[in-house]
Amino acid sequence: MKDGPNKLSGEDSLIARYFKPLATDPGAFNLVDDAAILKASGEDIVVTTDAIVEGVHFLSDDPPDTVARKALRVNLSDLAAKGATPAGFVLTLALRAADDGWLKPFARGLGEDAALFGCPLLGGDTVSTPGPLMISITAFGRVPAGRMVHRSGAKPGDRVVVTGTIGDATLGLGILRGGAAATTLADDAAAKQMLVGRYRVPQPRTAFARVVREHASAAMDVSDGLAGDLAKLCAASGVSAAIDAPSIPLSTAAATLLARGTVGIETIASGGDDYEILCAVPENRLDALAQAARLAGVAVTSIGTVIAGASAPKFLDAQGREIALPRLSYSHF
Amino acid sequence: MKDGPNKLSGEDSLIARYFKPLATDPGAFNLVDDAAILKASGEDIVVTTDAIVEGVHFLSDDPPDTVARKALRVNLSDLAAKGATPAGFVLTLALRAADDGWLKPFARGLGEDAALFGCPLLGGDTVSTPGPLMISITAFGRVPAGRMVHRSGAKPGDRVVVTGTIGDATLGLGILRGGAAATTLADDAAAKQMLVGRYRVPQPRTAFARVVREHASAAMDVSDGLAGDLAKLCAASGVSAAIDAPSIPLSTAAATLLARGTVGIETIASGGDDYEILCAVPENRLDALAQAARLAGVAVTSIGTVIAGASAPKFLDAQGREIALPRLSYSHF
Repeated sequence: MKDGPNKLSGEDSLIARYFKPLATDPGAFNLVDDAAILKASGEDIVVTTDAIVEGVHFLSDDPPDTVARKALRVNLSDLAAKGATPAGFVLTLALRAADDGWLKPFARGLGEDAALFGCPLLGGDTVSTPGPLMISITAFGRVPAGRMVHRSGAKPGDRVVVTGTIGDATLGLGILRGGAAATTLADDAAAKQMLVGRYRVPQPRTAFARVVREHASAAMDVSDGLAGDLAKLCAASGVSAAIDAPSIPLSTAAATLLARGTVGIETIASGGDDYEILCAVPENRLDALAQAARLAGVAVTSIGTVIAGASAPKFLDAQGREIALPRLSYSHF
Repeated sequence: MKDGPNKLSGEDSLIARYFKPLATDPGAFNLVDDAAILKASGEDIVVTTDAIVEGVHFLSDDPPDTVARKALRVNLSDLAAKGATPAGFVLTLALRAADDGWLKPFARGLGEDAALFGCPLLGGDTVSTPGPLMISITAFGRVPAGRMVHRSGAKPGDRVVVTGTIGDATLGLGILRGGAAATTLADDAAAKQMLVGRYRVPQPRTAFARVVREHASAAMDVSDGLAGDLAKLCAASGVSAAIDAPSIPLSTAAATLLARGTVGIETIASGGDDYEILCAVPENRLDALAQAARLAGVAVTSIGTVIAGASAPKFLDAQGREIALPRLSYSHF
């Protein structure tokens, strides 16, 4: 990080106390230098950066350890979607004050996830702000040279595949805000807890990175809503897609809310924070991908087909009618 | 960046309009993917990250192009101090609104500096915030394997050397705030402009990177004040230092303010934002370093000596008396 452990200032002691224990990689130099070293031996270094802001990507009263995990995991999700193995990350932390009660669990959560995903802290910067907390992470991964998976390789005829389940996180956010889902699930604490957990702590599909690299023609992670992110993948590939909405994989809780009419499929398809992997897979690789996914312990579902054209992807209901999606995805501006 | 050019949202069109032209490196994939590729062939990748916050590191009414330049240059300064050649950067921009009047000159300044320093934009993230603007940059450089220059190599007997002049930026900030320096220099517009320029647009000593790598035993950039940063270098190296304060290199404007008593040497030695390089140089390498610096067009001054011990570095006046430094360096907390 930017300041050494010489205890000259609050910033230094903050870094020494909370973040030095996380800097387990030799290239981090125990955070006593101005920069870190990332070793590379023939592989490509994949670089991704994602920031989360209090009140926008997480709530002020979210537990600090889940905020830390989310900040790292949204980046790990990008690496997985690109077929990359985590190598390390740098952290910028904008804080109103050095509050030990918040920093201690934050650093603990971050350290546990860094160890869990093999992605050590390499360095960072800590700044004060009068505004909302912000955590910006730049994460690094490795892929064999030239093997990063792009958004742009999808071809007509490819199958559209997603990992996990879609819509849980946006429903979890709805519950935290006291929306209709909270009422429908009033007696089902486990379901509510699962949905809130999906909002607060994404599950990056790290085990799927290799599968994507070997079988997908294009991939990205679903962070801003399935419909909008699919539109981006299609635009980058110069194609369109037809999605069979009833095939979109749902958790039991999401399926219950949909069946009871608490939410519509458009909420599920356009809500954000899924952090699942969306990919296009050539028809003749689909079985191999499914088998590799099973071995990796990651659920995958084929939800539609890539088609020629430049129009936005269509989401079709069980009768083949197009579903109107009022808002394609989240935009900050 | 995180969003493709499919014009689905304001965020996408903002990125396409302002930042895509800066993404000149093939590894940036025109910012239409989720991640970038940094090629490495045997060298080490040096990673550094530095954020600047409105009201803390720059002023709300600073010109947007100088804000952009400062955000990039503070990182380039770190790379230079580590002996690294710039390779690229990623940008996280936290904005209150997508204001074209601000973004256009910001992107222009950033693009000009990226070209000037051979450090292309590789990717980034744009988020909305209700708080102050914040620009967080993670920059990458390359050094021959194992050759990054550390803070920790200084040895007793080494000379303490700095590039350029010290104190200008903190005096420039004082002028912007209408302090005493503004009054003393009321009739010298050129001097005031120079000092303000030194605050707003640091000069990263990129040309000095190779010199540092070849001749310095330890180095860091001076960002939080000479006295405090020297204390950090000494702490990391397990040494102390004796500085001859009258040798600290000053601009004519700073020398004038010092001579007239507007500021004391302690302000100059503890003010921040210099972005000069501080290094320790073995006595027998000093001439070679000075000659290499001349060839690189970078002024260097020897200001003292590394000594054994664990105490904070001493700053001595012309009579050899220790100067009291009330505040060793800037801390955010």
